[in-house]
Amino acid sequence: MSDFVLKGDICYSVSPTQLAENKDSFVVCKGGRSCGVFQSLPKEFQDLPLHDYGNRLIFPGMIDLHIHAPQYAFRGLGMDMELLDWLESRAFPEEIKYRDLNYARSAYTVFVQNLKKSATTRACIFATLHRRATEILMDLMESSGLISYVGKVNMDRNSPDELCEMSAEQSEQETRTWLREIDGTYQRTMPILTPRFIPSCSDDLLNRLKTVQKEYQLPIQSHLSENPSEQKWVESLCPNAKFYGDAYDRYDLFGRSGKTIMAHCVYSTEDEVERMAENGVFVAHCPTSNLNLSSGITPIRKYCEKGLKIGLGSDVAGGHTESIFNTIVDAIQVSKLYWRLIDPTCKPMTFDEVFYLATKGGGEFFGKVGSFEEGYSFDAVILNDAQSPDLLQNSLHDRLERAVYQLMDRTSIEAKYAAGEKIF
Amino acid sequence: MSDFVLKGDICYSVSPTQLAENKDSFVVCKGGRSCGVFQSLPKEFQDLPLHDYGNRLIFPGMIDLHIHAPQYAFRGLGMDMELLDWLESRAFPEEIKYRDLNYARSAYTVFVQNLKKSATTRACIFATLHRRATEILMDLMESSGLISYVGKVNMDRNSPDELCEMSAEQSEQETRTWLREIDGTYQRTMPILTPRFIPSCSDDLLNRLKTVQKEYQLPIQSHLSENPSEQKWVESLCPNAKFYGDAYDRYDLFGRSGKTIMAHCVYSTEDEVERMAENGVFVAHCPTSNLNLSSGITPIRKYCEKGLKIGLGSDVAGGHTESIFNTIVDAIQVSKLYWRLIDPTCKPMTFDEVFYLATKGGGEFFGKVGSFEEGYSFDAVILNDAQSPDLLQNSLHDRLERAVYQLMDRTSIEAKYAAGEKIF
Repeated sequence: MSDFVLKGDICYSVSPTQLAENKDSFVVCKGGRSCGVFQSLPKEFQDLPLHDYGNRLIFPGMIDLHIHAPQYAFRGLGMDMELLDWLESRAFPEEIKYRDLNYARSAYTVFVQNLKKSATTRACIFATLHRRATEILMDLMESSGLISYVGKVNMDRNSPDELCEMSAEQSEQETRTWLREIDGTYQRTMPILTPRFIPSCSDDLLNRLKTVQKEYQLPIQSHLSENPSEQKWVESLCPNAKFYGDAYDRYDLFGRSGKTIMAHCVYSTEDEVERMAENGVFVAHCPTSNLNLSSGITPIRKYCEKGLKIGLGSDVAGGHTESIFNTIVDAIQVSKLYWRLIDPTCKPMTFDEVFYLATKGGGEFFGKVGSFEEGYSFDAVILNDAQSPDLLQNSLHDRLERAVYQLMDRTSIEAKYAAGEKIF
Repeated sequence: MSDFVLKGDICYSVSPTQLAENKDSFVVCKGGRSCGVFQSLPKEFQDLPLHDYGNRLIFPGMIDLHIHAPQYAFRGLGMDMELLDWLESRAFPEEIKYRDLNYARSAYTVFVQNLKKSATTRACIFATLHRRATEILMDLMESSGLISYVGKVNMDRNSPDELCEMSAEQSEQETRTWLREIDGTYQRTMPILTPRFIPSCSDDLLNRLKTVQKEYQLPIQSHLSENPSEQKWVESLCPNAKFYGDAYDRYDLFGRSGKTIMAHCVYSTEDEVERMAENGVFVAHCPTSNLNLSSGITPIRKYCEKGLKIGLGSDVAGGHTESIFNTIVDAIQVSKLYWRLIDPTCKPMTFDEVFYLATKGGGEFFGKVGSFEEGYSFDAVILNDAQSPDLLQNSLHDRLERAVYQLMDRTSIEAKYAAGEKIF
C-alpha cells in the first residue's frame, strides 16, 4: 500500500448539512487512510508522490448497502410488477440458474466489471443460496479491488423447489461449509449472514443462523417491511412477532449481536423504528426499487430525525441500475413527494443530506468510511465533469450536484481508489 | 428527400397497449413518410437503397412536448426548491442573460447540439421574451434537422424588471415583428404562441395575443395547474375564471381555435379536465420536473381514461435532463406511487403505455407522427443496445424496455431521421 497525495477539486460530507468544498486542494493518503484535505500541502507530505487531477472533481466513493448480484442480468426488465409477483416471475427463475457455475461465472463477471466502473467503492451484496457460485462472486469481487460484504443466501421455505434449501439443517451446513471454505481467502471481501427475508426462512433456520452468527461474529443483512402484501404475509407467518423486525430480533438477528442492514423499511411501524434505533440497525434506503416495484415511499426524513443509521442501496434488480448517483436523485425526488403528498411536516431531503447518506451514512457500516476527514479510509472517485461547457462558473457544490443529476458516473469517472488502493 | 429502406429490429406503438415488435424487418420511407414495416421486403421497394442496421433497435423518435431552451445551462442545479422560489432564484436570472445575443448563441448552441444527439426528433420549445435570441434559437434548430415549434415568450407582469415586457402593447408588437421576420424562413421550425403562464400575462396581453393567434393561425403552448401555490395565485389574479385553464379559455387560448399544449396539469380540477377534453388540449406530462420541483403527481391514468391527448415533456430545467427515456421511466414510476399512495383505482402505467405517450401520443400534436404505420412521418432512432452481453436472449420488447431504463439514449444512438431526413 502506497502513500500519496491527490490534487483537484475536492468535495466530501462532514455532516448531513455540511458539504466541504475545496477547490484546487490536496487530499493525503497514508496507509490507506486520509490524513485530511489541505488548501496548501503541509511540509510533512511534500515528499509523497502527487497525482494532479487538475480541475477534476474528487469525492468519496459511493456505498451501496443493498444489491443483488444475481439479478443484474435482468436489470431494467419486467418492471411492470409488484414485489411478490416479480420475485416469482423474474427474480427466482433467474437465481435458479446460478446452480450452473458456468452461468454464474459469466453473469457475475459482467456484474463485477460494471460495478467496478461505477462510482461505488463498497457494497453489501446478496448472492444466491448456491455456495460455490457465491465463492465465484467473492473471487471476482476480490480481484476487482472493490470492498464488499457478500452473502450466501439462506432460504428454506416458500420458494420454488429449485431455489429452496432442503432443510434448515442443510441450509446451516452449507453456510458453515461456505464460511470454512472462504476462511482467510480474501483481503477485502467479507462474508455476511443473509437470511433472504422472513417469508423464506423457517423459525428453525433462523434459530440455527443465530448460532452461526455468534460463532463467526458475522454481520447480517436482510429485507424488512418493503411491501404491504409482504408485511401481511409476515404477520400471518409469525403471529407472535410484535412487528416484522421482531421476527428477526427474536433470533437475535436484528443488530444487537452483530451489525445489521435491513433493506427498505418502507412500512416500518413506530415500534419497529424504535427497536431499530435501540439496536443500531442500518436502513438501506432503496428508493429506485421502491418506485419500480410500486412499494411506496420510505419516510427517510423521519428516520433521520429518529437518529437511525441510514445508507443508500441500488437494490439491483428491483432497482434498474447500479448507479448510486441515480439512487441519490430518486431519494431526493421521493422525499419531495412524501412532503407534498403524505406529510407536510417531513421536509424534502436536500442534495447535501442525501449525498451524505450515499457516502458517510452508508460508510459507517464499514467503519470510518465515506469522508476525507482525517482517519477515514481512503475511498475516492475522480470524475471529469468538464465535457459540457460550464457557462455559469458553477461552484464546486453545484458541479457535484450536476454531476450526480446528470449521472456522470456512467461515463466520466477517470480513476477510483478503495482503502488507498487504486482500482483503475 | 430520398426514398430508402432501413433493416433492423423494429419496434413501434400501434396503440397504448400494442407495441409492435418486428425482428429482422424492413421499414420503408418514401417522400418522408413510412410505407409500413415488413418481414420480407415487397417487390415494389426492392430497388430502393437499403441501410442494413443489423441487430440495432429501430424505433420512432421521441417527442418532447415541453422544454425550456434557455434553462438548459443550469439543468441539474438548484434542485432543492419549489416552483415559485426556483423561478425567482434560478430560472429568471438565467433567462435575463438572453438579451445578450452572444450569450444566447453560445448557450443555445450547446442546447441544440445535445438535443440533436438525444433520442428526440421533435420538440415544442420555450425560448425567452427576447425576439432576436429566439430567432437565433430557431436558426440553430433549423440547421440541426430536428423539427420543432419554438415560442418567443410573452410576459408583462409579476416578473423581474429585466424580464418583463414594458406593456401588453409592446409584447404584442414584438410578437408581430418576430412573426414577420421569420415568415418563410424555415422548413422545419415553426412559431408557436407562448404566453408564459397566467401570473406573467395581463388580461390586456392575453386579449392581444388572441388577435395575433387568429391572424396567424398559431398553435399555443403554456403552463397549467403545476403547483398549489401557483394555482392559488391564479385564483386571486383571475377571480372570474372558473378554474386555471378558464383564464386562458376566456381569451380563446385553450385549444378551441388553435392546437394547444398545456404543461403539467398536476392539479387540474374535474371542470378543467372536462374542458381540456372538449377543446382537445394536449397535456405535456412532465414527471421529472414535477418530482424535482416538489409539484406532485399528475394523475395520468385518469387523463388517459378521460380521453385527453397526452405526450411527455422533459421540461428542462425543471427536469434535469433532455432525455425522454428518463421521462418515460419517471412517468411509469410516479404512476406506481399514485396508485399506491393516492388512488388504488388508478392502475400504474405500463412501459408500453408510456412509450406510446412518448412517441405516438405526443406525436399527434405534429400530425401523423410517432409510429411506423403506413402514412406516418418518418422519424426514426437507431440504437445499438449490444454493448452489454445479453445473457437472457431477450425479446425485442424487453430489449427496448431495458434500453429505456438504462438510458441508452445518452450513449448508444447510432443514427436518427426526422421526416425522412437523416439528422446524423
